[in-house]
This record gives sequence, C-alpha cells and structure tokens, in this order.
Amino acid sequence: MSENNLGDHISHRFDEELEAVRNQVLKMGGLVERQVASGISALIEHDHTLARVVARSDVKINALEVSIDEQCTQIIARRQPTASDLRLIISVIKTITDLERIGDEAEKLGEYALRVENEGIRARHYEQLQHLGDHVLKMLRDSLNCFAKMDVEMALLTIASDKRIDDEFESVSRNLITHMMEDPREIASVLHVTWCARALERIGDHAKNICEYVVYLVKGKDVRHISLEQVAEEVDIELDIDIEDGDK
Amino acid sequence: MSENNLGDHISHRFDEELEAVRNQVLKMGGLVERQVASGISALIEHDHTLARVVARSDVKINALEVSIDEQCTQIIARRQPTASDLRLIISVIKTITDLERIGDEAEKLGEYALRVENEGIRARHYEQLQHLGDHVLKMLRDSLNCFAKMDVEMALLTIASDKRIDDEFESVSRNLITHMMEDPREIASVLHVTWCARALERIGDHAKNICEYVVYLVKGKDVRHISLEQVAEEVDIELDIDIEDGDK
Repeated sequence: MSENNLGDHISHRFDEELEAVRNQVLKMGGLVERQVASGISALIEHDHTLARVVARSDVKINALEVSIDEQCTQIIARRQPTASDLRLIISVIKTITDLERIGDEAEKLGEYALRVENEGIRARHYEQLQHLGDHVLKMLRDSLNCFAKMDVEMALLTIASDKRIDDEFESVSRNLITHMMEDPREIASVLHVTWCARALERIGDHAKNICEYVVYLVKGKDVRHISLEQVAEEVDIELDIDIEDGDK
Repeated sequence: MSENNLGDHISHRFDEELEAVRNQVLKMGGLVERQVASGISALIEHDHTLARVVARSDVKINALEVSIDEQCTQIIARRQPTASDLRLIISVIKTITDLERIGDEAEKLGEYALRVENEGIRARHYEQLQHLGDHVLKMLRDSLNCFAKMDVEMALLTIASDKRIDDEFESVSRNLITHMMEDPREIASVLHVTWCARALERIGDHAKNICEYVVYLVKGKDVRHISLEQVAEEVDIELDIDIEDGDK
C-alpha cells in the first residue's frame, strides 16, 4: 500500500471499528429480544424448560455489554472521534445499558415462570399478559430497527407507542386487582402476575430510552424530558399519527 | 501569563473542567437524595404538600442530567482524554443515568403519596416502609459518598448491602400479602404500598450501579456481573464483612 492511502486507510479502519461496534449492539439486541420473547412464552405457555433457560442465560448478554463498553472506551481513547462519531459511541454506551436491563427483566420473567412450577401458582392468570407482552415485544423490535436504520421518524412513533403500553399495564393491573378481591386465596399468585406485568412495562420504558438515543445520535438533540410534540417540531419531522393522542 | 505556562495552563483548565463535572454530579446526587428523602417522608408522614412538591420537581434533576451529559461529550471532543480521565467521564455519563432514574422513582413515591390523599387510600400501611426507606436512603447516601471520595472499599461494602434491601423488600411484600388476605377490601390500597416498596428497592439497585462505576473508575475493572468475592480479590481489597454473608 502506498503512503498516500494511509490517511484513507486509518479512517477506513475507524469506520470498520464503528461498524463492528454497531453490529455488536445489534447482536446484543437480537439476543435480548429472543430472551424477552422466550420469557413471555415461558410464562404464558407454562413452558418450564424454556423458563429454566431464560432464568439462567443472560451471561452472554452481560458479556457483550462489558465487551462493547470496552470497545467504545478504546475507540474514544485511540481515535479521538468528533461530533457525529462521538455521538454514535455515547449512544452505544447508553443503549447497551438499557439492553442489559431489558435482559435483567427478561430473566425475572423466567424466574417467575419457574415459580409457577415450583410454588404451584395457578398458571391461568398469566394468559392476561399475552397482549401486553406482544406489544412490548413489538416495541422492543421497533426500537432495535430504529437503531439499525438510524430512523428518527420511526423512533418518534415508537416513543409515542410507550403510552399505549402504560395504559395496557394499568388495565391489566385493574383486572388483577378484581381477581384478587374475588378470590383472596389467589392473592399471592396474582401478585406474581402483576410483577411480571410491571417487568414488561419496564421493558417498554427501556425501549423508549433506546429510541431517544437514536434521535440524539441522528439529530444531535437531547430529547429526553421534553414532550413528543416539541421533539417533532425541534427535529423538523411531521409525524403521521396524532402525537397528542399517542402521548396524552 | 508567560507562554511557558501555557502547557500547564491547558492541563490545569482540563483538571478544572473535570472537577466542575464531578461537582455537578455531586450536586445532582444531593438533589436526588433530597427528592428520595422527601418522597419517603411524604408517604410515611402523609404530608400532602411535600408529596405535591416531589411529584412535580424532577425538572432540575433532568436539566442537570442533560447539561452534564453535554459537558462530558464536549470534554471528550476537545480534550481527547486518555485512560483514567476517560474512565471518569464514562463513569459520570453512566452515574447520571442512574441518578436520573432514582429521581424518577422518587417522583413516583410523590405521586403515590398524592393518591393517598386523592383516592382516600388508607395511609397507615405506608408506615411499613419506614425501615426499607431508611436503609435505601442510607445506601444512596453511601453510594454518593463513594463517588465523592472515590472509595473502592466503601463501594464494595455498599454493593453488599443491597442484598439486605432485597431481603427487606421481600419481607415487606410478604407482610402486605397477609394484610390483603385478611382484608380483601384493602387490596387496591395495599397494592399501592407494594409499588412504593418496589420503587425503593429499585433505588437500591441504582445506588449499587453507582458503586460499581466507582470501582471501575478507580480500579479500571468492570465489576458488574461478577460476584463480590471475586471483585474483592481482583481489586485486592480485604473487606471487613463476611462477603458471602452479605451477598448470599
């Protein structure tokens, strides 16, 4: 290689490093998504084998978090990235923290599914989590797609959809309270279901955080803590949905 | 100032910038700590004025998070920090995320305290949260002290104390289930208390995360996801407590 290419080469290797980190995040995201899907299935389909796997398998996710963190720190130290590259790295550092915590919540779903087996908790209550679980899983998938495609519009729509998950969580909670009142002997069992509903709702919160980092990454705006309407205006995007409706 | 001093001056200003960021984190920590203390008081002492303040006052905390994040990004971009300086900045970025989420949990405590007023929820159940609240507040205070003093030994002891909080949460939960079974009309009220207990337990988890960043910062070791015993060995510290006891 001639010396003339050295500049390009260095920058090319830097691009490759950033691309490698992005791919690692997507790999971690894929693992986390499968963990959540398995956690939900284990609960609803009373699949104890799957529950056991989910309850003990976030080792890979944790290892990926530590390794991606390390790669990011090394890239910053060696490459002195500026502006958009630095935003990508900071976004990655924040995204993997949320992914790891989604992994923790999935692990909890697995542990609760195991308790159903071990403590003779009535399994039928878990069927109420189907809708909430489906929506949370879709939201997580969407947030990872936003990250993969750097799609700000989709990120804002996904952020808006968190409100629906919160509403659904409230509705499941109300139902479960009714069950408890109707049959107080079931209180301990039903309480476990509400913990699982809460874990799912948390996963929605983390997915929302990931979408906020995508907006920061692409637009350079920190959109946490401001209303969606304001965000859409600030980043100059017209959303198809009625934001107020989605965010009220 | 002579030109000879320029090198010193630049590095001196860099030190000042890092010190300023650290102070901002401690300021944010102080605010968060007061929010949590107020949230707990509002619940236990049925102080509705305080509840209203806590439920609507994480604006300052959120603004600090955004501003510290911005300062960190600018320092990385301008100063090209290496090794320990970079670790400090990465630790700050992670710490403030946890502090902000502790602020969110405190806000929830305030909202629940308001519901006690608005929905006529029986307030006496909240007295059960006193011990858990005291311990969580102490743990949060300790984690901020660890950060202020960069004290690894204290950080490890604080990490160990999270287990006690988890145990106390379980014990409060069991008590509350008993209450619900004894008086099913109280289920909805008592469920709110369990949500508050959960919020307190989460605050403990976030405080633990902050301590883990302190160990990373000082020792350069990522100690998430490994046992405390292993950590103490790796960072070559002998802990006074029986770790296994604290972490089992």
